[in-house]
Amino acid sequence: MTAKIINGRAIAQVLRNDVASELKTLLKTSPASPLITSITVGHNPSSDLYLKLRENACKEVGIRTNHLYFEKNIREKQIMETIHQLNNDPSVHGIFIQYPLPTYLSQANLIRAIHPNKDVEGLHPYNLGATYLGDERLTPCTPQAVLTILKHEQVSLQGKDIVIVNHSTIVGKPLAGLLLQRNATVSICHVYTKDLKRYSSQADILITAAGVPKLITGEHVKKHAVVIDVAVIETKDGVCGDVDTTSVVDKADLLTPVPGGVGPVTIACSLKNMVQTYKTCMGQK
Amino acid sequence: MTAKIINGRAIAQVLRNDVASELKTLLKTSPASPLITSITVGHNPSSDLYLKLRENACKEVGIRTNHLYFEKNIREKQIMETIHQLNNDPSVHGIFIQYPLPTYLSQANLIRAIHPNKDVEGLHPYNLGATYLGDERLTPCTPQAVLTILKHEQVSLQGKDIVIVNHSTIVGKPLAGLLLQRNATVSICHVYTKDLKRYSSQADILITAAGVPKLITGEHVKKHAVVIDVAVIETKDGVCGDVDTTSVVDKADLLTPVPGGVGPVTIACSLKNMVQTYKTCMGQK
Repeated sequence: MTAKIINGRAIAQVLRNDVASELKTLLKTSPASPLITSITVGHNPSSDLYLKLRENACKEVGIRTNHLYFEKNIREKQIMETIHQLNNDPSVHGIFIQYPLPTYLSQANLIRAIHPNKDVEGLHPYNLGATYLGDERLTPCTPQAVLTILKHEQVSLQGKDIVIVNHSTIVGKPLAGLLLQRNATVSICHVYTKDLKRYSSQADILITAAGVPKLITGEHVKKHAVVIDVAVIETKDGVCGDVDTTSVVDKADLLTPVPGGVGPVTIACSLKNMVQTYKTCMGQK
Repeated sequence: MTAKIINGRAIAQVLRNDVASELKTLLKTSPASPLITSITVGHNPSSDLYLKLRENACKEVGIRTNHLYFEKNIREKQIMETIHQLNNDPSVHGIFIQYPLPTYLSQANLIRAIHPNKDVEGLHPYNLGATYLGDERLTPCTPQAVLTILKHEQVSLQGKDIVIVNHSTIVGKPLAGLLLQRNATVSICHVYTKDLKRYSSQADILITAAGVPKLITGEHVKKHAVVIDVAVIETKDGVCGDVDTTSVVDKADLLTPVPGGVGPVTIACSLKNMVQTYKTCMGQK
C-alpha cells in the first residue's frame, strides 16, 4: 500500500475561505479592514518567498498589509522603537516579525516588545503561556498548521504515541504543549537525541522539522504511521523536507508533501491569527 | 548495588541558606522585608500541611507571610477582587494560591488575575511563556525543584532520555520545557499513555508525578537510572510516592524518597521565587 499524500493546498484553501467569510461578517460592523505590518531584516530567499506568499494570501481574503524592511546592520534599539510606534498606532492590527533574524539581534527581546494583542505569531510570552494553559486563541502558526492538518484528516490524538523532531520555541515546544493538551503521549527529539530511530520507529504520528534532507527514511517509520514533514529546505534540486519520500511512502498511511503540505496551511493559520489580533484590537474577544 | 537515596531535606537546607543570605544582603538597602500573601480556599490536609511547612520556612529565612482563608463556597469574583487589592498593595511582594482549588473555581482565571510581578508560583501566562522562551527568573516551583536536585547530584541532562509521568500545567509541561532547554530528549506520559513501561524502562532519568502508589516498579526502571518521585500520596499507612521503593532500589542508581525528597526542595524553591518577586517589586531585576 502507498501512503495517501495530504493536500496541504486544499486544506489551506478551506481555511482561507473561512477567514474571508469571517472577515466579511466582521466588516459589516467595523469601520476599517485589518492592517498587518511585517518586519524583515536583511534578505533571505525563503523569508522573501514566505513574505510574498503571505501578502498574496492576505490580499485574497481582504487583509491589508504593509512591510517595513531594515538593512542587515540595523540596531536592535531602532527596531524596538518601530515596534513601540506600531503598538501605539490604532490603525495597525497586527505585527509580524519574519524569522530567521540576523544572530546579533535578540529574538526574545523583539518578541517581548510586541504588544500581546498585536502578536500575530502567538510567540509573545503572554500568548505562549496562555497556549500552554489551554487558551488557544493565538497559537504559533506552524504548530497550529500541524494540528489543523491532523484534524482535517480525522487523525485522533488521545493516547497516540507522537514523536516530534524539533525542540525550538517556534515549532517543537508549543506543538508538544498542544498535543499534550489533547492527551497524546509526546516525545520530543532533536540533534542531541542519542537514538532517533528508536523513537521515530514507534510513533503513530511522526512530525519532523529538523531541516535535514532524507533524515527520515522508511526505517525510521512505523507501518501505518502518519508522517507530517514541517521542514522546508532549499537544495540545488529544488525544495524538499526531512522525509525521504521514496522509502517512506510505502510504509506510512498518510504523508504531507514538501512543498504543498504544511507550508500553505501555516500561511493560512497566520491569516487566522491576523483576524484574531484584529478582533482583539477592535475590542472583541 | 542499591540506589543512593537523595537527601531532599539537605538540598533544601542549602537553598534556604542561600535565600537567607541573599535576603540579608538585600535588606541592607531595602526599607521593608518581603511580605507574601497566601490564599487558600477550604481545607485539604496536604494543602494545610504545605502551607504550614512553607510558612515555617519563610519565617526561618526572614520572609513575612500572611494568609487569607476563604470558605469553600466563596464566589470567584470575590477572590478576584482580593487579588486585585493585593496586586495594588505596595506592601505585598508576592501572592500564592494554594492548589488544589474547589473545581467550580477556574484556576486559569485566578492565575491570570495575579500581577506577573507578584506571581510567586511562576504560573501566570506571562511567566510560563517566559520560562518556555528561556527566561527562567520565575519558574514553577516543582519543576524547579526537580532541576535543582538533578543539578545538585551532578546528573547531566544534554542528550539524556528523560521520561516524565505527568502532563499537568504545574508539573509535566513546564518541566518538559525546562529539560528541552537543556537539550534532553523528553517523553511525556500520563494516564492516556498506551504502554508506560515501554517508555519508562528506557529512561536514563524517570520523573514521576502520577499520584498512584506503586505505579513504578523495578520492571518500569532501566538499570542505573535516576528516579525522581514527585508524588505525595496520603495513605492509611502514611505518605508515599509513585515508586515501589523495594523493587526499584536495586535497579536505580539514584532515587528520591517520599517524604524527604522533592517536597522540601519544592518549598525551598518557592522561597527563591518569593525573593525574586520581592526584588521585582522593589524595582530590581
